[in-house]
Amino acid sequence: MPIYNAPTKDMQFILHNVLKVSEQDIDGYEELDRDFTGAVLEEAGKVATEVLLPLNEVGDTEGCVLENGVVRTPKGFLEAFQQMKDGGWTAMDCDPEYGGQGLPYVMHTAAQETLVSANMAFQMYQGLTHGAYSAIHVHGSPEQKAKFLPKMVTCEWTGTMNLTEPHCGTDLGLMRTKAEPQDDGSYKISGTKIFISAGDHDMADNIIHLVLAKIPGGPDGIKGVSLFIVPKFIVKEDGSLGDRNGVEVGKIEEKMGIHGNSTCVMNYDNAEGYLIGEMHKGMRAMFVMMNEARMGVGLQGYAQAEIAYQNAVAYANDRLQGRAVTGDENPDGPADPLIVHPDIRRNLMDQKSFVEGARALTYWGTTLIDRAHKNDDEAAEGLISLMTPVIKGFLTDKGFETTVAAQQVFGGHGYIEETGMSQYARDARIAMIYEGANGVQALDLVGRKLAQDGGKHVLAFFEMIKTYISENKGDEAFGADFLEPLKAASKDLQAAGMYFMQNGMKNPNHALAGSYDFMHMMGHVCFGLMWARMAKASMDALAAGDTDTEFHETKIATGRYYMARQLPATGMHLARINTGADTVMALDAANF
Amino acid sequence: MPIYNAPTKDMQFILHNVLKVSEQDIDGYEELDRDFTGAVLEEAGKVATEVLLPLNEVGDTEGCVLENGVVRTPKGFLEAFQQMKDGGWTAMDCDPEYGGQGLPYVMHTAAQETLVSANMAFQMYQGLTHGAYSAIHVHGSPEQKAKFLPKMVTCEWTGTMNLTEPHCGTDLGLMRTKAEPQDDGSYKISGTKIFISAGDHDMADNIIHLVLAKIPGGPDGIKGVSLFIVPKFIVKEDGSLGDRNGVEVGKIEEKMGIHGNSTCVMNYDNAEGYLIGEMHKGMRAMFVMMNEARMGVGLQGYAQAEIAYQNAVAYANDRLQGRAVTGDENPDGPADPLIVHPDIRRNLMDQKSFVEGARALTYWGTTLIDRAHKNDDEAAEGLISLMTPVIKGFLTDKGFETTVAAQQVFGGHGYIEETGMSQYARDARIAMIYEGANGVQALDLVGRKLAQDGGKHVLAFFEMIKTYISENKGDEAFGADFLEPLKAASKDLQAAGMYFMQNGMKNPNHALAGSYDFMHMMGHVCFGLMWARMAKASMDALAAGDTDTEFHETKIATGRYYMARQLPATGMHLARINTGADTVMALDAANF
Repeated sequence: MPIYNAPTKDMQFILHNVLKVSEQDIDGYEELDRDFTGAVLEEAGKVATEVLLPLNEVGDTEGCVLENGVVRTPKGFLEAFQQMKDGGWTAMDCDPEYGGQGLPYVMHTAAQETLVSANMAFQMYQGLTHGAYSAIHVHGSPEQKAKFLPKMVTCEWTGTMNLTEPHCGTDLGLMRTKAEPQDDGSYKISGTKIFISAGDHDMADNIIHLVLAKIPGGPDGIKGVSLFIVPKFIVKEDGSLGDRNGVEVGKIEEKMGIHGNSTCVMNYDNAEGYLIGEMHKGMRAMFVMMNEARMGVGLQGYAQAEIAYQNAVAYANDRLQGRAVTGDENPDGPADPLIVHPDIRRNLMDQKSFVEGARALTYWGTTLIDRAHKNDDEAAEGLISLMTPVIKGFLTDKGFETTVAAQQVFGGHGYIEETGMSQYARDARIAMIYEGANGVQALDLVGRKLAQDGGKHVLAFFEMIKTYISENKGDEAFGADFLEPLKAASKDLQAAGMYFMQNGMKNPNHALAGSYDFMHMMGHVCFGLMWARMAKASMDALAAGDTDTEFHETKIATGRYYMARQLPATGMHLARINTGADTVMALDAANF
Repeated sequence: MPIYNAPTKDMQFILHNVLKVSEQDIDGYEELDRDFTGAVLEEAGKVATEVLLPLNEVGDTEGCVLENGVVRTPKGFLEAFQQMKDGGWTAMDCDPEYGGQGLPYVMHTAAQETLVSANMAFQMYQGLTHGAYSAIHVHGSPEQKAKFLPKMVTCEWTGTMNLTEPHCGTDLGLMRTKAEPQDDGSYKISGTKIFISAGDHDMADNIIHLVLAKIPGGPDGIKGVSLFIVPKFIVKEDGSLGDRNGVEVGKIEEKMGIHGNSTCVMNYDNAEGYLIGEMHKGMRAMFVMMNEARMGVGLQGYAQAEIAYQNAVAYANDRLQGRAVTGDENPDGPADPLIVHPDIRRNLMDQKSFVEGARALTYWGTTLIDRAHKNDDEAAEGLISLMTPVIKGFLTDKGFETTVAAQQVFGGHGYIEETGMSQYARDARIAMIYEGANGVQALDLVGRKLAQDGGKHVLAFFEMIKTYISENKGDEAFGADFLEPLKAASKDLQAAGMYFMQNGMKNPNHALAGSYDFMHMMGHVCFGLMWARMAKASMDALAAGDTDTEFHETKIATGRYYMARQLPATGMHLARINTGADTVMALDAANF
């Protein structure tokens, strides 16, 4: 049976020592003192380990079943979802006007992490609902908000996102789903949507589908796409549920993982729908969901890595195999534990330095979102808009790589399903794909975000790192171990940006051929900054007399590992980028 | 339905243009002319696509079932296995004295590749038998050979390897399985073995288990391990089958992949066994199987990547999504095919340059094995002994990475089981684990092979590259595109070796903490050499008037890609290695 312990101490360290949330001038942050966040996170960790963790394997092995047009979730999911509703875990950062608790997004995110680590497939039912809630909250009419949001905040009704069709995913301009205007102002929606997570299930009274469709006569392509609310059951004026709407589950997909979540083909046949936001401006409304979802998917990447890492550590300490090359460390036993071996250490340090760096980056990113939303801070908005594809792409690529590395520690025992390690890898794999495959994230970063607003945000990013380095100079060891590598990595990243500027004008392929490498480089630079900030926070804590020396010294040592062993990757990525598009685009398509 | 076309042309290119097999002074190679190898490989490709490919998904979804103590293989496997026997595909390189065809190992390997690409789980039944055949062939008594080999050559009887026990895998010295000597010279074997591939099934009349066990009173640890032949059914003097032996299947493991192969827990209870080779020298005999198996597992790594790559190319050419940034390439269609996009190209070029490089390296490696065995060439023996962990470790790590990259091309369609891409990734994953997890390969390379025979073999490796570079100087473009990067990568590898020498003496952890990076570096250097040789062979062919310019120009361009985009990884690995063990070993085990 896999283990999991919520890393509350580490979360608290990031919130309070690194980000110092309660000192930030963001609306609502003043109440985030250490005791409060600690109490919430402890409680979330309890729900994760006691309620969700025991259902993770059940969800994987049983999966969801379509019976007589209705999706049945795995045994125990229904009761657990009720506990989530009862505990208020669905409403944490939602608007109090609609029954939410109005907490900052950073708090929601930290609590989500532990729930997602314990049971990713289960937590998606709430995650999708939250995304749909946000889209309606930002773009819905007052009537729509009043009608749908209170029930979505509590997850009495859940939500879905309907974008993909059989012939189009990334390129939504090819969409065929139609929305015919009706005399009463509603629309009749017809078409097929695929890969709809939480598309149907037995855990909510109603499901609010957000559906992209084209109103006939509108502009071609992506500019003619509108967003609609299509409830599974029609909601009457008094809020009670009426007739079944014209939407049905075609089938449940057989997938590599996340079997506990029902990924459905949804057939819309003259389903009643209500336009949300402006006609033909559906993508704008959908992007509210998508940006939020991309942060959430980045979180999934490292949350799966976290639970896989915890189990790998437990196994490495437990499993006796071979002897330390420097002398027996368990002389009374038949062999030493795996963790004595340098290559096992290397692997575990890769994992540890990834998940802790990812957590810091994610929490920091969510403070930028809070700052952008609560304080209308355009600089924060620009920075997080730049970093969203990096958080999604880098955290899910490395998250999957890390779950696979953790699985490797188990040897053959990692390949059999019994230890749970296979499930973490299979579940984590989807995060590299959905909400925009990682290649699309790289394209978004290099093709759009770098040049956005005249390149202002990426320049601000580099300026921020420069400022950080100059403000933290002084301590020689810190400079050598952290600031110098960060400076070198940032320099590599700038050189790559320069290469794109100088060559992308002539031929945009010179930039796009290096987009994936750039995304990874930027991820490393972000991690470098995070590790410098974490190490500094630990040094400050020790200097201030914090007695938890083991925790802080471990933090500093883990940071040193990342800077020494992971950050040199930027040089390789730069070398690749500097070769441009010539070798990448050399072949005719027929010669692959 | 997944596609697969045997890459016969590419195989022929490596055998004849690159390795020039028929000109090599190796026993039996003189008959390997282009027509002969072409005919064999075409025929193997036909079996792969017509017989094995259609059963790959069946094997995955049905899996093997244990019913009343007997393992039932998936529908169609029995008939297909019979076709493999009838076609003589099990006997290609086996000793004619026992009914084999006596072809070189390189020929066997090339034919295996296509069979493994089409159905890895299926092909393992024969692969394990071949390994058991080899161990008996090298270490068995004349009577044992006469009794067992003829039926194993034809796969009327199949074979298994029994090493792992519940509490020990890598560290076989901890083994508990006992072998009690009997008056008649046989032994009674008792114990439990796990993860036994092809442990039981319904496709052969008998199964010849090779089992490691300890004879009481022998030396402790690995030095007291002996190897035994334990047939499922006792073979009588006249060769007919007698009683069922004391060996039973405990259960079939639920695994992440290779469901078509029965991975069994095997319980031995006073089973009759016959010592093979010398008492307490079981590991020596087992290593014959293991080295062969490691080459075979390396092959599995790239063979799965090959079929995944072929499907990714087909999908990228077929799926219309978005427009080329440099102008529409399919103006009459609603969108351009995926393959126009630079990041899709980058991904496909990574895949293509990997599988072709891996094929060249594997075939070259098998010519070294042939040279070692047929010509008693110690230099070849030393070189392949050095490279075996690299071929196993690098080809399976990169092979898995490549299947995952190919799956990524499909977006969401890669995550559902229907396209087959998930199966390739799940199947390929095991290759990083079995026959010695890749961390153990790295340990074998750096902890044993580098220093073996006074470092003679690694010095010969470097000398070989130096010689290659100096002998092929002249053409300026070839020098710049191929020789210079190869030289730089080789220099990085030598610097890493130097670091180990200088620091590993003081503390072996300084070497072992870099072992995994070294294995990957050496893989890249081998690939660099292979790509230089392949590009040169294509340049030579073009200069000699070969009219297949498209093939050769594609080969050269693919090589340029590898040198420019992949080889720079050596710099990163060296940077990591040069930081030594300090950051790797810094934490107390309790602080992970």
